Amino acid sequence: MTPAMIQLSADGRLQHFLTIEGLQRKHLIEILDTAETLSGVAERRVKKVPTLHGKTVVNLFFENSTRTRTTFELAAKRLSADVLNVNIATSSTNKGETLLDTIRNIEAMQVDMFVVRHAVSGAAEFIARHVAPHIAVLNAGDGRHAHPTQAMLDMMTIRRHKGEFANLRVAIVGDVLHSRVARSNIHALNVLGTGEVRIVGPKTLLPADAEGLGVHVYHDLAHGLRDVDVVIMLRLQRERMSGALLPSAAEYFQQYGLTEERLALAAPDAIVLHPGPINRGVEMDSAVVDGPRAVILEQVTNGIAVRMAVMSIVLGNRAHPQEDFA
Amino acid sequence: MTPAMIQLSADGRLQHFLTIEGLQRKHLIEILDTAETLSGVAERRVKKVPTLHGKTVVNLFFENSTRTRTTFELAAKRLSADVLNVNIATSSTNKGETLLDTIRNIEAMQVDMFVVRHAVSGAAEFIARHVAPHIAVLNAGDGRHAHPTQAMLDMMTIRRHKGEFANLRVAIVGDVLHSRVARSNIHALNVLGTGEVRIVGPKTLLPADAEGLGVHVYHDLAHGLRDVDVVIMLRLQRERMSGALLPSAAEYFQQYGLTEERLALAAPDAIVLHPGPINRGVEMDSAVVDGPRAVILEQVTNGIAVRMAVMSIVLGNRAHPQEDFA
Amino acid sequence: MTPAMIQLSADGRLQHFLTIEGLQRKHLIEILDTAETLSGVAERRVKKVPTLHGKTVVNLFFENSTRTRTTFELAAKRLSADVLNVNIATSSTNKGETLLDTIRNIEAMQVDMFVVRHAVSGAAEFIARHVAPHIAVLNAGDGRHAHPTQAMLDMMTIRRHKGEFANLRVAIVGDVLHSRVARSNIHALNVLGTGEVRIVGPKTLLPADAEGLGVHVYHDLAHGLRDVDVVIMLRLQRERMSGALLPSAAEYFQQYGLTEERLALAAPDAIVLHPGPINRGVEMDSAVVDGPRAVILEQVTNGIAVRMAVMSIVLGNRAHPQEDFA
Repeated sequence: MTPAMIQLSADGRLQHFLTIEGLQRKHLIEILDTAETLSGVAERRVKKVPTLHGKTVVNLFFENSTRTRTTFELAAKRLSADVLNVNIATSSTNKGETLLDTIRNIEAMQVDMFVVRHAVSGAAEFIARHVAPHIAVLNAGDGRHAHPTQAMLDMMTIRRHKGEFANLRVAIVGDVLHSRVARSNIHALNVLGTGEVRIVGPKTLLPADAEGLGVHVYHDLAHGLRDVDVVIMLRLQRERMSGALLPSAAEYFQQYGLTEERLALAAPDAIVLHPGPINRGVEMDSAVVDGPRAVILEQVTNGIAVRMAVMSIVLGNRAHPQEDFA
Repeated sequence: MTPAMIQLSADGRLQHFLTIEGLQRKHLIEILDTAETLSGVAERRVKKVPTLHGKTVVNLFFENSTRTRTTFELAAKRLSADVLNVNIATSSTNKGETLLDTIRNIEAMQVDMFVVRHAVSGAAEFIARHVAPHIAVLNAGDGRHAHPTQAMLDMMTIRRHKGEFANLRVAIVGDVLHSRVARSNIHALNVLGTGEVRIVGPKTLLPADAEGLGVHVYHDLAHGLRDVDVVIMLRLQRERMSGALLPSAAEYFQQYGLTEERLALAAPDAIVLHPGPINRGVEMDSAVVDGPRAVILEQVTNGIAVRMAVMSIVLGNRAHPQEDFA
Repeated sequence: MTPAMIQLSADGRLQHFLTIEGLQRKHLIEILDTAETLSGVAERRVKKVPTLHGKTVVNLFFENSTRTRTTFELAAKRLSADVLNVNIATSSTNKGETLLDTIRNIEAMQVDMFVVRHAVSGAAEFIARHVAPHIAVLNAGDGRHAHPTQAMLDMMTIRRHKGEFANLRVAIVGDVLHSRVARSNIHALNVLGTGEVRIVGPKTLLPADAEGLGVHVYHDLAHGLRDVDVVIMLRLQRERMSGALLPSAAEYFQQYGLTEERLALAAPDAIVLHPGPINRGVEMDSAVVDGPRAVILEQVTNGIAVRMAVMSIVLGNRAHPQEDFA
């Protein structure tokens, strides 16, 4: 079974959510449509629906990320699930236990879903291959590999502003090479039939196999931005700034930082996305971050709806858990 | 708009709770009366009311305080809210994000209330000035500035024992200069029309502008305690004990520590408050802490009721959140 | 009152759960039978019952243990309680407050149950002696003394596989001397009338008063395992491995590690338990851990049911909390 296939049931329905790769347009559209429906929940007086009442969602974070953990915790609570936060960095893997033993231990508590964040690419998939059949695994970011819920919240944000993907030009700007957000976005944009996908950045920060990804490569930001409808800025990891891959944050900003002048090269109604947290003055000028074209906070809002949607879909696609216990 | 006014709506109702300063007697009485009503909840078999069901309360703690965080978490849960604990010391402000970006990010998750603790005076007010209009901000302690829920739980405790404030003499003893508890208590006692408010401590630990605060200043504890009905002891921060402001903890206790002998100078039925945690043998002798005049644990119990009251009032005073979303 | 008696009410019902010592067969059977009933909850679509709705359970962990904390948190949530996690290592005992002041402070928040984990033997009992009468205390492990819920989940696992205890031979293998799990298991097995209880390990890791515990002592693993129906392996603490008590982990495994060959000396249908986390290749060979005789993950599942049972029983045995407040 290919990495991408483990997340689909025999009849092709989503049972985990690990990567966009290998999914079909219908899977992504189902997530987006469900997220649209659920986005209304947060605007009601009572921001909860009983969908996952009596289910247990475990945030299994091997890599600390308060922000991402918070969005999944909130999504689960708005679906009325019980949430356990397990920070494994400070937990029993310290005690010499293997990853698999940790997983089997928590699954034996008869939980329903693992939300996994891990510094190693493939960790969420590894866990999905080994968990009990009643447990769904969501990938909340694995190494440089994938961050599929981030991609889907970006797609939701784009669709809300631009409608169909077929006519869109989208530029992804920055450290594409090390970015799981970029990888997942490229796959999602392609699956959704986006007109043109560009990646823009210095050679040291773009993948060597760019053509295989179905994208156009630009090293010059002005060229890369010309006439695009959507600009997805990537976060520059601090450790890169002082490393051999980049001269300095200031020099990076001079070449690849998004300013209002540069944004003027894009289509007049182009929108700007960023996964956060933003390094103001490095990836983007504050005028752009706070300007009318940025949809960065909408991304956050849509992120809750997308995560609620994915949780609802994968658990809805599963058999009654009782059938899985001996 | 003055700092004090930001917390009131156009028609003068509490929409945040940042400081006692600038509030009127009616605001404080509303909190105390609501807290009395809600104090019954914790004595029922089912210690919950549905008031905030479907609301999301975020404990945004930039300064670690398990105890204070626990009281707000419990208050919110007893009102049936969902609670997210976000410890920002270990979170994304580490990643170079500004405070305002962090706030905007979490508010974009469509939460309803921030409970803010921060080492910098004015932080909660700063946040209240910048949050989306549907979000209420509660100050859980900002620098040396204010700790208004602590003041209100002290007022509730005093009122339960002493009734009207007009005839009372109250002494606040210790490090008034650095104490947000003292500042908020002085304001609350004055707003409630307390007969006489005294501050007692060494010159190095009393504010220079004491007269402007409407209090009488005593440097001698015996004089300061004479005939008072209420003694509010302040916590002595450990870092002060070894600093230039104080000779030593033992010497401090000798001059300003509350003993049974000294307490005998106060009115025969005087009560003793302390915000906790207590340094036994520094601010107070254990015989007083454990004696019949101490109401320190009642303060804790009342603190849950006061926090439930403030949460109910500020959210009750707000428009339906739906109206605030574009 | 003896240490063991503090946990029983005047009419002999469980009001805390601190140690197996001093309990009668009927107490243990009540826990096992209740756990059997509650084990069905986790197999339902909605894994919750309203038993503790409106109650507040506080996980008071002075010793960090994500795994144990998680099992109690989950048990409480499946009973619909509100749960507060208070990690005291990072909390106010840092600020110079005494343990008793910390306890009194949290109990003043009108909580209903403390789940206590502490590195010092007797800590849970100390707390039980001093809490307000309406609060139940569960011992989640105190020093080398006791870990009674672990013992009860082991008993539940054994009873599910073997039925009556009278005809069973049980071997407890490893570092009995330093193990609170072993002590609690020995008491539980004796109270339940187990046919024969053996302890197996090197002299340096067995208690000197073994005979007084009602067990048979073996220093040779092959002899100790012969014809037993149940093998309870203990976790070897890492700090022992490099200490003076043991030559090395490899040498320990050679003498006391459980392999399939050695397990063949036991009864043909013998089961193998381990409290986790396992050091594969130290206490047990991976072939045994993953083999058909290991019931280690069932222990975890049963642990949730046992903790739900204990929580239900101790709170059910208490008067209405309202009666305890002045």
